Amino acid sequence: MTRDEARALDAADPFAALKARFAVPEGVLYLDGNSLGVLPRDTSARVADTVAREWGEGLIRSWNDAGWIDAPMRVGAKIAPLIGAQPHEVVVADSTSVNLHKLLVAALGAQGGRRVILTEPGNFPTDLYIAQGIAATLPGVEVRTVARERIAEAIDERVAVVMLTHVHYRTAAMFDMAAVTQAAHAAGALMLWDLSHSAGAVPVDLNGAGADLAVGCGYKYLNGGPGAPAYLFVAERHQARLASPLTGWMGHATPFDFGDDYAAGAGMKRWLAGTPPILALAALEAGLAAFDGVDLAALYAKGRALAELFVAEVGSRCPDLALASPTDPAARGSHVSFAHADGYPVMASLIARGVIGDFRGPDLLRFGFTPLYLGFEDVWRAAEILGEVLASGAWDVARYRARGAVT
Amino acid sequence: MTRDEARALDAADPFAALKARFAVPEGVLYLDGNSLGVLPRDTSARVADTVAREWGEGLIRSWNDAGWIDAPMRVGAKIAPLIGAQPHEVVVADSTSVNLHKLLVAALGAQGGRRVILTEPGNFPTDLYIAQGIAATLPGVEVRTVARERIAEAIDERVAVVMLTHVHYRTAAMFDMAAVTQAAHAAGALMLWDLSHSAGAVPVDLNGAGADLAVGCGYKYLNGGPGAPAYLFVAERHQARLASPLTGWMGHATPFDFGDDYAAGAGMKRWLAGTPPILALAALEAGLAAFDGVDLAALYAKGRALAELFVAEVGSRCPDLALASPTDPAARGSHVSFAHADGYPVMASLIARGVIGDFRGPDLLRFGFTPLYLGFEDVWRAAEILGEVLASGAWDVARYRARGAVT
Repeated sequence: MTRDEARALDAADPFAALKARFAVPEGVLYLDGNSLGVLPRDTSARVADTVAREWGEGLIRSWNDAGWIDAPMRVGAKIAPLIGAQPHEVVVADSTSVNLHKLLVAALGAQGGRRVILTEPGNFPTDLYIAQGIAATLPGVEVRTVARERIAEAIDERVAVVMLTHVHYRTAAMFDMAAVTQAAHAAGALMLWDLSHSAGAVPVDLNGAGADLAVGCGYKYLNGGPGAPAYLFVAERHQARLASPLTGWMGHATPFDFGDDYAAGAGMKRWLAGTPPILALAALEAGLAAFDGVDLAALYAKGRALAELFVAEVGSRCPDLALASPTDPAARGSHVSFAHADGYPVMASLIARGVIGDFRGPDLLRFGFTPLYLGFEDVWRAAEILGEVLASGAWDVARYRARGAVT
Repeated sequence: MTRDEARALDAADPFAALKARFAVPEGVLYLDGNSLGVLPRDTSARVADTVAREWGEGLIRSWNDAGWIDAPMRVGAKIAPLIGAQPHEVVVADSTSVNLHKLLVAALGAQGGRRVILTEPGNFPTDLYIAQGIAATLPGVEVRTVARERIAEAIDERVAVVMLTHVHYRTAAMFDMAAVTQAAHAAGALMLWDLSHSAGAVPVDLNGAGADLAVGCGYKYLNGGPGAPAYLFVAERHQARLASPLTGWMGHATPFDFGDDYAAGAGMKRWLAGTPPILALAALEAGLAAFDGVDLAALYAKGRALAELFVAEVGSRCPDLALASPTDPAARGSHVSFAHADGYPVMASLIARGVIGDFRGPDLLRFGFTPLYLGFEDVWRAAEILGEVLASGAWDVARYRARGAVT
């Protein structure tokens, strides 16, 4: 493809105008929305208003008057259409890690004598670590890891819950959510999906797949800001029977009665623990507004086309660079990775030239494609710069090796 | 005291100028800093900069370049002098509820066969609820509640950890931290203090008292904003042996190696779980800056004097109103409560007249005294208005009874 052809695709793109909703820095080609989404233009004003008017002027009255107390459920309901959930099946709370802990312990508690958490090696580290922490704390719990190709057949009568990340953080390999969920159910296990690398970028249909539980983070494709609050999903059919181990006051049925005995709130409320983080919730809510009025299926198709363009252009310019992601676009999420022995300094050189992706050790160059604020010419140009950097050999291995990881 | 005498105290107050650090709304007498602290003037600009420059322009680079990755330890170190801790004994993370869970489970894990969490009935609800959630999840764990007068004698060889709130959220009754801690240690138990209602308002000396563990919230006297992140303290001598059950990736020794196996980080790092909430951390850090250069002992003495003035003025104007807090100023924190059968509508009437305190059912009017932004005339005037409201009988019981609690 020529640069003019990429420009023509932008001219015909119905989503091109959405870029104006974001404050993409001048001179930056941002291919890292899968790690930290770009700042939406409305977020600054929304956060400033929450600080100065709601907190500064309203003070304690804003818990009621500004709707603070309802924010976790209200913002959760706005995430629901992105993940195929009903509005009352999603709540915003805590971090992905903490939510994984809550749901895994709850799943184990609901599954009788089954004590195995089944997952894959190489899953996102916090998923593995949280499961290991539970195994170290609760008697008899075991974390079993099985290569993804053999997950379905490994679900046996000892497995309480299968925990997988829908789109892999390194390779972008995407599970068939419906098929794996069906396999879990066939063996009597619950299915927990981590949607951190998929929600907002690829189609996710939790209820269509019959999923039981899910978590996801707010700071990647949802554009909620660094360390944004996370969310969790519990299918309606499980809501009354699952119990959170983190029984904080905001999950109580009537927290403002200040009684001595815990009584779990109805629906998703019981998954709240502490006082909700209002400033961060305001930023996340503003981030989600970037999806307002957007045809999601068409948006995801654009994201896939962006990634396909990048893979094709890199393939023709850098024939020696190995794609570490599935070659079939339908089998991957919205990022792609390439393996390169000097991946770290190559990425540093790209960043110095304004192409921001990230590095995942030991050797992956990772690039994310966010259709809300990336165009075809952006992607074409990023591939061109990658080609120039690799052709030049202009990266300083020694200098960057000394620095530690680009996060 | 006359109003002129109160004004004279303000004129002689070395801390009077600190009020300019806060955006107290015009016409408001804010006696609720024990629930949600007032917005510091510098916070708006700091949060705006974090959003627009650090996130908007720096994007993913700010994890290193703007010090995001260090924020939990950096802000924790700023809390340390307020609670008598060393800088490396405090980290900011999650909510008070989640931190209570981490430390209680860790304490149980370190205490061999001891399986009792000892606390008092009427402790702040989330403390009780979190302990109950642990008892419902971990085999053999029991939550034992004993009236505060008999706590020390109730610590026996089955008690793993004593969990108490230093200053009671309703009455402001304050424990003798050193004496109770000593009693816990004499019986082989660990001591965990909840400092939510004391840190930043009264002297707290965790290491002086020999305390083992502590938690506290960021949104009361620390002025971190609604739902600000909380903090936790682990005495240096315990840091290597206690294990968090919430083993998220940010607590890993080397999170950016992305390995499959959890290895706890050194010092306080292991108490982190998910990705730190950067926007909220920026607000909390700005809130803590309000203490910069302040003589803490003298500040707390002013707070006590404010509360004493209020109690005296209310006592002379409203002789029938019963003080529900200790009469000895040395035995209470920085708020006081009065019992009134129509407490809820009385508080609503006060708020309508610009005096913001809060109501705690079934019958408490609660008023907090924050020496950073309250003056003697403010407090004198609040007492006068309370006297006027009570003398008038001008509260509408039926109207407010229908509305539910003021949070």
